[in-house]
Amino acid sequence: MHVYLNGEFLPLEQARVSVEDRGFLFGDGVYEVTRVLPSGLFAEAEHWERLQRGIKELKLPTPEGFTRARVRDISQQLLEANGLTGRQATVYLQLTRGAAPRNHAFPPAGTPPTLYLSTSPFQVPWTQRKEGVSALMLPDLRWARCDLKTVNLLPNIMAKQQAREAGVFEALLVRDGVLTEGASTSVFVVMDGVLHTHPKNQRILPGVTRDLVLSLARELGMTVKEQAVAVNDRGRYQEVFLAGTTTDVQPVVAVNGAKVGEGTPGPMTLALQRALIQRMGLEAPP
Amino acid sequence: MHVYLNGEFLPLEQARVSVEDRGFLFGDGVYEVTRVLPSGLFAEAEHWERLQRGIKELKLPTPEGFTRARVRDISQQLLEANGLTGRQATVYLQLTRGAAPRNHAFPPAGTPPTLYLSTSPFQVPWTQRKEGVSALMLPDLRWARCDLKTVNLLPNIMAKQQAREAGVFEALLVRDGVLTEGASTSVFVVMDGVLHTHPKNQRILPGVTRDLVLSLARELGMTVKEQAVAVNDRGRYQEVFLAGTTTDVQPVVAVNGAKVGEGTPGPMTLALQRALIQRMGLEAPP
Repeated sequence: MHVYLNGEFLPLEQARVSVEDRGFLFGDGVYEVTRVLPSGLFAEAEHWERLQRGIKELKLPTPEGFTRARVRDISQQLLEANGLTGRQATVYLQLTRGAAPRNHAFPPAGTPPTLYLSTSPFQVPWTQRKEGVSALMLPDLRWARCDLKTVNLLPNIMAKQQAREAGVFEALLVRDGVLTEGASTSVFVVMDGVLHTHPKNQRILPGVTRDLVLSLARELGMTVKEQAVAVNDRGRYQEVFLAGTTTDVQPVVAVNGAKVGEGTPGPMTLALQRALIQRMGLEAPP
Repeated sequence: MHVYLNGEFLPLEQARVSVEDRGFLFGDGVYEVTRVLPSGLFAEAEHWERLQRGIKELKLPTPEGFTRARVRDISQQLLEANGLTGRQATVYLQLTRGAAPRNHAFPPAGTPPTLYLSTSPFQVPWTQRKEGVSALMLPDLRWARCDLKTVNLLPNIMAKQQAREAGVFEALLVRDGVLTEGASTSVFVVMDGVLHTHPKNQRILPGVTRDLVLSLARELGMTVKEQAVAVNDRGRYQEVFLAGTTTDVQPVVAVNGAKVGEGTPGPMTLALQRALIQRMGLEAPP
């Protein structure tokens, strides 16, 4: 498999960064995962925009010629090199503040940033999408800027691992008594027939798929509230689902070992799942 | 300069990790900085103990033969190779969960962890220690497990950089109206003649130098309260100082542009600074 690192396309085995890379020493960087469909990159403009926002907020430098067109071009070359053109895949992009002698404050101006891209083949787990998954509520231990897609991901890792060890798909993070989001997904809850999700602020990542799901829900005539859902209202959850770049609309049929609704994917969830799959130009197997 | 990486001593320029290292992709690792004095490693047992705690809490794997004696040996070999034996220096150690295809949950058992050590020469900035520095209060944006010394350091970086841009030495982090600690130091405040510092809990790093300063303060007959100091009491701060592995006891003579006490290092601060320097076997220039 080939990857892209700082201007070069090279085999993964040869793609190495300095031990002084600030990504390695501090987690000082941002990333994006973009979905690739047979028709090409999906929601690429939205991922690019979010990346730009992270770069600006964290004052990250960018390599020369770092334009949306250039990144699209690198992505397409990589997909081609890895035999993924016209197939389903993902593109991973990470940008760090580059390598410099270890010091918390930013390195000297002119320190070249590190830009890394890789691709992976992707297959929709249709059975899982259809049958639903289980989830577990866990405390949201993350920092105060969850709106930035940084590689400081330890709290997410620890929550995901705890979910896996409990035999469930995702950790639903809880802060101050409300659901924020999943360890690597956005969370939606239907209550009183209304679709709820946490409002965009510094406690959640502004999910590209989250936004798309909200817009599809409005198109379908659903009532939408961008309002956090209390854990204490758990008995009132009619439907729960996750959304994300590689999660699409994923029904959750059990939370903390208890069924959500009837314990099967709900009608609003399935309608949104169909709408998203259609928007992506995919077709679910019968 | 030579460094140690996964069993090898090699020039820094050749020390590279995979782009799939979980340190680079997730900040999935812990670190320690240990002070080296002409007499050898300082407080090495305490740093080792804290490292062990982080490894346990984060369920990090360790390389074969990862013992305190082995790490001490690697450190000494590195110091020797870099001409630092018998001089002042620091040893940096970082352990990550190793390289594996990107996935939030832990990689398969048996994935080799990454162990990196480096050394740097160190000189005490005596003038700064004597004259004091300025600091700035900033919101503490960090996660809920600040007791772990992980490489998820973005909030620390951003605070340190903001302090630097304001022309001051350190950011004093504030959460829920109280001082927790500095971006890379512990914080002490004298109020009503009593030495205060934040109690050990998940909101601060259990500083090795912090503990040593507390023990020296008790030996000197000072009254000590491990109790958080309110920002609102700022008018009552008589003395403020920072403590850390490379910070020793560093007086802070101004906070947010306003003098602390008389705007000169206070008597308790200076007594603790002298006691620590003596404990380290160093001698301040006249």
